[in-house]
Amino acid sequence: MPETLLLRRVAIDTYHENVAYLHRDCRAYRSEGFQALNKVEIHPEGGGPLVLAVLNVVDDPAITTPDELGLSEQAFAQLGVAAGTPVQIAQARPPGSLEAVHRKIQGKRLGREEYQAIAADIACNRYSKIEMSAFIVACAQAGLERDEVLSLTEAMIASGERLDWGEPLVVDKHCIGGVPGNRTSLIVTPIVAAHGLLFPKTSSRAITSPAGTADTMECLARVALEPRELREIARRERGFLAWGGTARLAPADDVLIAVERPLSLDSPGQMVASILAKKVAAGSTHLIVDIPVGPSAKIREGRDALYLRKLFELVGDCLGLHLEVMLTDGSQPVGRGVGPVLEARDAMQVLQDDPQAPADLREKSLVLAGRLLELDPGVRGGQGRTLAEEILTSGRALAKMEAIIEAQGRNREPPTLGALRHEVPAASDGVITAIDNRQIARIARLAGAPLDPGAGVDLYRRLGDPVRAGEALYAIHAQFPADFHFARAQAGRDPGYRIGEPNHRARNGAGE
Amino acid sequence: MPETLLLRRVAIDTYHENVAYLHRDCRAYRSEGFQALNKVEIHPEGGGPLVLAVLNVVDDPAITTPDELGLSEQAFAQLGVAAGTPVQIAQARPPGSLEAVHRKIQGKRLGREEYQAIAADIACNRYSKIEMSAFIVACAQAGLERDEVLSLTEAMIASGERLDWGEPLVVDKHCIGGVPGNRTSLIVTPIVAAHGLLFPKTSSRAITSPAGTADTMECLARVALEPRELREIARRERGFLAWGGTARLAPADDVLIAVERPLSLDSPGQMVASILAKKVAAGSTHLIVDIPVGPSAKIREGRDALYLRKLFELVGDCLGLHLEVMLTDGSQPVGRGVGPVLEARDAMQVLQDDPQAPADLREKSLVLAGRLLELDPGVRGGQGRTLAEEILTSGRALAKMEAIIEAQGRNREPPTLGALRHEVPAASDGVITAIDNRQIARIARLAGAPLDPGAGVDLYRRLGDPVRAGEALYAIHAQFPADFHFARAQAGRDPGYRIGEPNHRARNGAGE
Repeated sequence: MPETLLLRRVAIDTYHENVAYLHRDCRAYRSEGFQALNKVEIHPEGGGPLVLAVLNVVDDPAITTPDELGLSEQAFAQLGVAAGTPVQIAQARPPGSLEAVHRKIQGKRLGREEYQAIAADIACNRYSKIEMSAFIVACAQAGLERDEVLSLTEAMIASGERLDWGEPLVVDKHCIGGVPGNRTSLIVTPIVAAHGLLFPKTSSRAITSPAGTADTMECLARVALEPRELREIARRERGFLAWGGTARLAPADDVLIAVERPLSLDSPGQMVASILAKKVAAGSTHLIVDIPVGPSAKIREGRDALYLRKLFELVGDCLGLHLEVMLTDGSQPVGRGVGPVLEARDAMQVLQDDPQAPADLREKSLVLAGRLLELDPGVRGGQGRTLAEEILTSGRALAKMEAIIEAQGRNREPPTLGALRHEVPAASDGVITAIDNRQIARIARLAGAPLDPGAGVDLYRRLGDPVRAGEALYAIHAQFPADFHFARAQAGRDPGYRIGEPNHRARNGAGE
Repeated sequence: MPETLLLRRVAIDTYHENVAYLHRDCRAYRSEGFQALNKVEIHPEGGGPLVLAVLNVVDDPAITTPDELGLSEQAFAQLGVAAGTPVQIAQARPPGSLEAVHRKIQGKRLGREEYQAIAADIACNRYSKIEMSAFIVACAQAGLERDEVLSLTEAMIASGERLDWGEPLVVDKHCIGGVPGNRTSLIVTPIVAAHGLLFPKTSSRAITSPAGTADTMECLARVALEPRELREIARRERGFLAWGGTARLAPADDVLIAVERPLSLDSPGQMVASILAKKVAAGSTHLIVDIPVGPSAKIREGRDALYLRKLFELVGDCLGLHLEVMLTDGSQPVGRGVGPVLEARDAMQVLQDDPQAPADLREKSLVLAGRLLELDPGVRGGQGRTLAEEILTSGRALAKMEAIIEAQGRNREPPTLGALRHEVPAASDGVITAIDNRQIARIARLAGAPLDPGAGVDLYRRLGDPVRAGEALYAIHAQFPADFHFARAQAGRDPGYRIGEPNHRARNGAGE
């Protein structure tokens, strides 16, 4: 049979897209035409499992010989047969659910079954990146009706595993992001767990922001934990701060995020579906959603915040999740540090009840923790904030954090702050009237955060602070000269701070 | 400097997307985080040219060692420095024009400069497939205003080379597609060239259809010709039928098509921009656009055809192109064969004035050729069709075709019809009341066309023909058993023919 090739595992990790490698002189297929088709389907000779993959053409027999068909790591694992197995390839028919994507592009409303089919196909890597991008853009542009957001959420939950902690009250909090610093989870989790509520916090690594909760916690402890370990720590300590990637929770969401983030697309429907799917799959029963509102936050005005709040509430209710939304101040970064090492420093200062700890981060964490504590039927309404502060000042929160760190595995070689340091000075005398969250995040990322945990920005001034020309607004930290250069250049073009006359102070809600 | 790697050329052709290969244990960068960023920028140490690429992580030093940075063929050629050159990588900033794509996703109208920037970035492979897909879907969903179509067309022309034939009258024809068979170019080109009009026909290979003009011509002669050869043949023979891929004409269009086709997206604005950009870049001054209209054609009703015609006319006028649109019958395939070998057979039968030649293909070709001939100021209006028929019946068209085939290089080993053959029978007595263009095309593609030129469908019955139960409607030809099986199964589910009572005949416009 001329169209049989021998399967080869090609040690290339192609990240959420299956790739097949065919030699240009392959005796069985005209590779060039196949490549233009974008996708092929591969199955063992005579039938059996099947994977879809995009095709790359190879000219080096060290990668794939003319008698072989190579598969990238993902595709090879998914096909699940041994190297050397005779396989056949054919022009792939598009995944069945792609017709629904076309209907969405035409502006139609999709039903529950259509979202189920899309999520299932995506979770199995049947979509190419091109097709995923089409789905995401079509949803962002046409918008999702409320029932569609619910359908998409349910479909993403159904695409993977679902944790069950066997308790009626499993709490969590989630911030929609967009405000640098703001690492409240490292403070809230030990406070709530110290009180005894079950708080199994799984979170993501940062990709477009300078630090995620998992990146920051990783400065202190191991975060890639097996489900078995998570269960054991939750039982003993009532809480942990782990990376969510080891459990297979809403995998369709992971795949979509890998496309959404490079596009910087974050439409309300997809945001709600993504967050709630992950939380329900992680077994949460009660959730506080933090929506920061501010001129350079993700949500810029009250009207948009209200729309998003109603959408969270509606979908949460339909999923049987107890969900409360808090609108918070997103007019500037929260805490001083932006970047994993700096944010871990801030959080530990708060937990140590250090008088130097950033007051805004402390206060926001206490308010959030208070709301979570009031989910306990035994805590009287309005008493949560006070109880949270007692747990913090008594040292019980710090002790709990230390116990969690030990349980997860303390990082014995914690990363240090980047040695290259540059202070960005104020251009004039005056008062800080605006801080641009996006620009501060951009500078911290250019400096190397989060890949280089010691990189970032350390903020010295906040809204309403007086400043004199030449005084430092913040310091940039980096480890590598190229990153340092990029970040300095960016801050030189626009430091992200606006300085105005002192009498502007009141008008900008500053001086807190 | 820890962040310098040695450039390596990786012999993988990644088709319109730059890919960089980084070893997982790379001593300079944490590959995992970079991969999630989707894109990196690579430049020689100390500065110089720069390419953007998506990142794949490699575990095999035979592909890329921890000290190297591998680049796919496309990316390596584009960077243009020698293997072994020390290079650096950084997080890529998105291409500047991506902000305009976001504006389009939000439903805004884009200006001329924005389209210029997008086309330039796309032509330089600065967009990932994800980003191209976002642009295409946003345009398809929000729609393009007429001035936007013009801007996009001009931008795609400006992205590449532009042929100049040094004559005031350079004619061409183009069909928007969607009707199987319909290989009129192989007949029209020699008729028009025999009359002496310059007709330099460049065309594409089929990707989503069972055959393109280039695939069909390739059964007879070489089609991948150098610009120098094209010029020489045009001078001597006044026409050719070549593949357009060797000249760098509107390259941004090629890149976009590579994403559009797998998505099967063909919005009016992008269709007009794509066709006219290619024709203007190829040096055409006069163009006939063939728009087939029918229930299973791309354009299903007169209203849509009118909209598309006006758009072609407007953009053509603005580009200084003499453009005429013909609406033609798209209610069924044109000619008998569907697939390269079968379509070449039909065209040669017409040129040989064989009484067995498909009458509809002959007639349509004569009408098109007539319209083109009337572009010659010396041909009286209304006389083109008669003149075309004279050139055909006199044998001059055939002689010209033979001369063109010799000039391009005759195919000495022409492909033959696939030996596996299956006749699809009528299920009942009656008259053919409908033929589904899409289903016939799908069956021919499953049979292996166009990659396997001898595969396809040979149609025995046309609209209005009487048929008895069990008589063959058409034959499927294939070379490979797997393809043969797929195509037969598809025809078994739905043969693509509807058979009705004889009195339905008149109502369906059949019996021509």
